[in-house]
Amino acid sequence: MIDSLGDDPDVCSALDEMRPHEHRGEALARIAWSVLAEPGDGVAGALIAELGVREALDVALVGPSRVHSGVGGQALAEGRARWKARGDSRAVVDAIRSARDVGARLVLPGDANWPVALDDLGAHAPTLLWVRGDPRSLSVDPRVAIIGARAASGYGEMLAAEFAGDLATAGAVIVSGGAYGIDGAAHRAALGVDGRTVAFLAGGVDRAYPQGHRDLLRRIVDTGAVVSEVPCGTAPTKWRFLARNRLIAAVSQATVVVEAGWRSGSLNTAGHAAALGRPLGAVPGPVTSAASAGCHRLLREYDARCVTTAAEIRELWGGASHAQEHAVLSDPDQVRVLDAIAGRSALSILEISRRSGLAPEKASAMLGVLELDGVVRRVEGGWQKARGGGRRG
Amino acid sequence: MIDSLGDDPDVCSALDEMRPHEHRGEALARIAWSVLAEPGDGVAGALIAELGVREALDVALVGPSRVHSGVGGQALAEGRARWKARGDSRAVVDAIRSARDVGARLVLPGDANWPVALDDLGAHAPTLLWVRGDPRSLSVDPRVAIIGARAASGYGEMLAAEFAGDLATAGAVIVSGGAYGIDGAAHRAALGVDGRTVAFLAGGVDRAYPQGHRDLLRRIVDTGAVVSEVPCGTAPTKWRFLARNRLIAAVSQATVVVEAGWRSGSLNTAGHAAALGRPLGAVPGPVTSAASAGCHRLLREYDARCVTTAAEIRELWGGASHAQEHAVLSDPDQVRVLDAIAGRSALSILEISRRSGLAPEKASAMLGVLELDGVVRRVEGGWQKARGGGRRG
Repeated sequence: MIDSLGDDPDVCSALDEMRPHEHRGEALARIAWSVLAEPGDGVAGALIAELGVREALDVALVGPSRVHSGVGGQALAEGRARWKARGDSRAVVDAIRSARDVGARLVLPGDANWPVALDDLGAHAPTLLWVRGDPRSLSVDPRVAIIGARAASGYGEMLAAEFAGDLATAGAVIVSGGAYGIDGAAHRAALGVDGRTVAFLAGGVDRAYPQGHRDLLRRIVDTGAVVSEVPCGTAPTKWRFLARNRLIAAVSQATVVVEAGWRSGSLNTAGHAAALGRPLGAVPGPVTSAASAGCHRLLREYDARCVTTAAEIRELWGGASHAQEHAVLSDPDQVRVLDAIAGRSALSILEISRRSGLAPEKASAMLGVLELDGVVRRVEGGWQKARGGGRRG
Repeated sequence: MIDSLGDDPDVCSALDEMRPHEHRGEALARIAWSVLAEPGDGVAGALIAELGVREALDVALVGPSRVHSGVGGQALAEGRARWKARGDSRAVVDAIRSARDVGARLVLPGDANWPVALDDLGAHAPTLLWVRGDPRSLSVDPRVAIIGARAASGYGEMLAAEFAGDLATAGAVIVSGGAYGIDGAAHRAALGVDGRTVAFLAGGVDRAYPQGHRDLLRRIVDTGAVVSEVPCGTAPTKWRFLARNRLIAAVSQATVVVEAGWRSGSLNTAGHAAALGRPLGAVPGPVTSAASAGCHRLLREYDARCVTTAAEIRELWGGASHAQEHAVLSDPDQVRVLDAIAGRSALSILEISRRSGLAPEKASAMLGVLELDGVVRRVEGGWQKARGGGRRG
């Protein structure tokens, strides 16, 4: 599919513009994969992980039908059935030319600006990113996703703007999806304070979607980046929106949903963030507002953290995560005791025993150890986490 | 102090009116304690638990200064210093007469209408309750506290009324504190649907506090109950408000804070509920509203559950509590795995391993067992709690 393209001077010059001083073979193979496979194709990802991107491409399109250790024969056969329909080198050339025409750059895994956080997606990680604007925006820390409903209220847009403006002023990259409503308010606020913002699109970076955000996306390109994993010319589809959401969640140190309806796509992004172990914040609102129903659902069903200020959003990634802190505790019984007193209110030994499932004597002993470590403290009415140790639970 | 009162015909007839067919000695001793000790006096509670209410009274006022197993000599000496100042039998007679004058009844531990939930307060349980209205209101299930700020907004009062009206219609007893704002809206809504409601006062039940709720409290007496642990004639003080809050939290199966400022007294009640292991709900509101700041704080700091409808409030006590459900799981490793997937989003084995502190192989084995039990299920992206098992975590 791409064997001859490396000799095509036009293709080579375009590739050199998009990604100077790098080997073209790897780039071409990844571009081919981005043409062949839909975002998040786990079979493609497993194949690439096992064989490398170029041999995987050979196997996918022309190689023998051998069964690989990580990729079952049935899955591979089905994958081939999907990919072969797109196995046309002209599509690769079109993708490259279209990207060059809009000044898009190519960022590949291993590149200096590749956000390694995306690797947490495993077999569902993107094979590459098409980037208009400054690729460094992808690797600057911290990155926080401020997302939410297109059908946002004035309340939601005001808060999105306040939070994004505050966080961007402090140097955070505001990641969002370029949509109307909350996304647009977040992007605009970041631009308004001369901050960095990145828009992940579901379609190609050559297409302004939504059309009404053409100017906004152009402004984002000027100082931040507009990014997609699908080639130029690709239309945004429902599936690609859902797939795009995983990139927003994975690339960001924390995700905050400002407003979302009961079935908003933002909940999908939030679900990815939670599944990846990324801190997830939800902004509460009036229970009478349909635009906040999804946020309240996140608080109830996804263990999202209630955030009401930019400072509280900053806390999401400022402290070490729950999982990480627990890992440093050597004794699992200590973890259980800490889990039991996760709230800030004082608990009796008996209640801690009940909650932790440890015998009262055992719970008491663990509390003693944790007290020495300054993690818990005795108070009237029992025990509670020590101040400053509040983010452990 | 009370030795001669049992022979006073006036006292006896008053007692018989307030609590017919019961031994007067126990009642007199408990009334004496309610006169002597401030609410929640733990030394008094420990003494009563150890010696019984009558011998405790003897020891407190006239007995030898012996050291008891459960009550240290120093604590007892300090207690005596507090109580002796009030050791006047006329105060007991006044309490009884004032109670009779307003038609108050006496409800003692062990009585049919004594809410046994109060016993969870241990040494801080009240020695008795003075009740105007129908004492059965104290023992009808379920009882739910709907509380919040005096300085409530229209939003908060509307929701308090909606929730209380809905829950009272379904038979729940609405417990609150009789204050302006959220409390008043909750009481009124319960009355409005001919439901039961109970007001716990910080002062004596002979005093309408606040004065502006004189009529409201009278209406509550007609169909529900106005309750206090302090004798008639006692003024509501800051301390007694705080002490009263523990009764609201303890007597209710669940506590819901509808609106509360950042330092609202409702957070004190919520803290008692959490410390007692009672389900705690907080109603979110606009982050721009100071009247919701305390609710958001409960969501962030107290692990309160976000509740937005009466149905969600009902879930607070509808399912078994976290601690109880965990207790039925035989294997602590299962508990840890369930704790790890407390959210609704799918988690990988690796993440579950990290969160639970179990080796991946161990976590995997536990998940297999829990899957057989229908508690967890495999989904794309890993594992999550089974639907319907959602309240386990």
